[in-house]
Amino acid sequence: MLRDGFQMEPDFIPTDTKVSLANRLSEAGISKIEVSSFTSPKAIPTLADADTVFERIRRYPGVTYTALVPNLRGCERALACRVDELNVVVSVSETHNLANLRMRPEESLEQIALISKRAADNAAVNVSVSTAFGCPFEGRITRDQVFSVIDQLAAFGIELVTVCDTTGVANPAQVYDLFDAASRRWPEMSFTAHFHNTRGMGLANVIAALDTGIRYFDGSLGGLGGCPYAPGASGNVCTEDLVHMLQMMGYDTGVDLDLLLGIAHDLPAIVGHDVPGQVMKAGTSDRTYPKPAGL
Amino acid sequence: MLRDGFQMEPDFIPTDTKVSLANRLSEAGISKIEVSSFTSPKAIPTLADADTVFERIRRYPGVTYTALVPNLRGCERALACRVDELNVVVSVSETHNLANLRMRPEESLEQIALISKRAADNAAVNVSVSTAFGCPFEGRITRDQVFSVIDQLAAFGIELVTVCDTTGVANPAQVYDLFDAASRRWPEMSFTAHFHNTRGMGLANVIAALDTGIRYFDGSLGGLGGCPYAPGASGNVCTEDLVHMLQMMGYDTGVDLDLLLGIAHDLPAIVGHDVPGQVMKAGTSDRTYPKPAGL
Repeated sequence: MLRDGFQMEPDFIPTDTKVSLANRLSEAGISKIEVSSFTSPKAIPTLADADTVFERIRRYPGVTYTALVPNLRGCERALACRVDELNVVVSVSETHNLANLRMRPEESLEQIALISKRAADNAAVNVSVSTAFGCPFEGRITRDQVFSVIDQLAAFGIELVTVCDTTGVANPAQVYDLFDAASRRWPEMSFTAHFHNTRGMGLANVIAALDTGIRYFDGSLGGLGGCPYAPGASGNVCTEDLVHMLQMMGYDTGVDLDLLLGIAHDLPAIVGHDVPGQVMKAGTSDRTYPKPAGL
Repeated sequence: MLRDGFQMEPDFIPTDTKVSLANRLSEAGISKIEVSSFTSPKAIPTLADADTVFERIRRYPGVTYTALVPNLRGCERALACRVDELNVVVSVSETHNLANLRMRPEESLEQIALISKRAADNAAVNVSVSTAFGCPFEGRITRDQVFSVIDQLAAFGIELVTVCDTTGVANPAQVYDLFDAASRRWPEMSFTAHFHNTRGMGLANVIAALDTGIRYFDGSLGGLGGCPYAPGASGNVCTEDLVHMLQMMGYDTGVDLDLLLGIAHDLPAIVGHDVPGQVMKAGTSDRTYPKPAGL
């Protein structure tokens, strides 16, 4: 959350604030926290303090601390910081991979093979497969294109795969189709669903993925994030709105929603602007009001 | 849409604007338009021009023009205006019914019986069952409470029922359970689902209702509406975001999405503020951008 949520923010978020947020998210019971990114500080200045943040966060038992790792150099930095899990990205779309990572997807896959070998017993490796439902440059992405990428990941022995709707174009029918087929084809893999709420379909896509048996979802506190190709639109699926929905449906998320909402309430002051989260504004579904006078 | 969308707006929307919006929505292929409300002009001043609006809109073949009708007096006005369908409201929650309609639910049901008799062959009667998933005063509403209201409607011969999540508290599990059971219990009835996006679950609830076979959904252009008990939160499910999702999923909605988005784009200027609709900001899912230079 911290990484995807903050990388779009124009102002540098103080290291103390990041550490405190990571600790508070751990306390709230979030099971996996993407703390930062070991990319070039020039590429994402606001995450240039990744090493320091990892040094200073408290590690809670049961919580997986992950970081984005773009290449072998980032992998070395992450391993030195004792990151539990490396998150490596490859786009299904060649154009998006070139724009985002300055490499062709084949080169990213080679990096992933090397990182996976290097990490070995020191850290888990999760691969985020980007633009899996559509690309802002190439348009619609087919399931076969996505599966051909996952086939190669399986060949490297990767068992943790996040399927990402990077720019919020996926619809629930497409989501159901892809996750249903992927879960059957690679029963040994653990899939995470990563949605953006850019066109209002974030939680609808969560429902579609849930229906196929997916139980891991990415979210971003307050719905921070956004996408440079969808100006004015919402960002990642909002973590607390997601947890709220799942809990109201009767799922045991392991998260303390009150604590989580408390952190979300502090977010606008941290980033200096309003955030898209809705439960923090409306209150939970079981909130009640005093009866109007005279009734 | 016009009624639920505009009734929360503090400023009077000119009659010409309302007529033009109704005509444009008809042209875009919306199958049912709630044009206004025949309530007391004192209660909702911005809809005081209901009679004039109905007189001046163009009636498109295949489009049902409806209006909210709170009582027998409103029914007479609506019939005089040749309204195709009267929408009458009753809350499952006694407190909400008292607050909203200044009557107990039993009195509302009596009104509905009278209105239904009076309308007879002159207009269809749809009943909107409010607070069907929860009440801002009484909290959780059970399925049995809702069914006991629908039982009485069935006894009056009502065949059109809209089940409303008035304050945006419903979750997809609850929605699936209610619509699945209702569709089995009253196979002769035509159910519409009415959701608010107050806690981000609007389209997720649509997916859950779709899964039970529901095919009629209420929406509000731009997501206007809101709720006095959820300050700062979104209003009704946004019509164009809903149509966009359904079309992307492969459903034939009969709506021209480009025309609909054109109307939505004019909405902020009409109401004088930003609206929650997201597709109007982000563009449709198949929107593509030029490849970045140098790739």
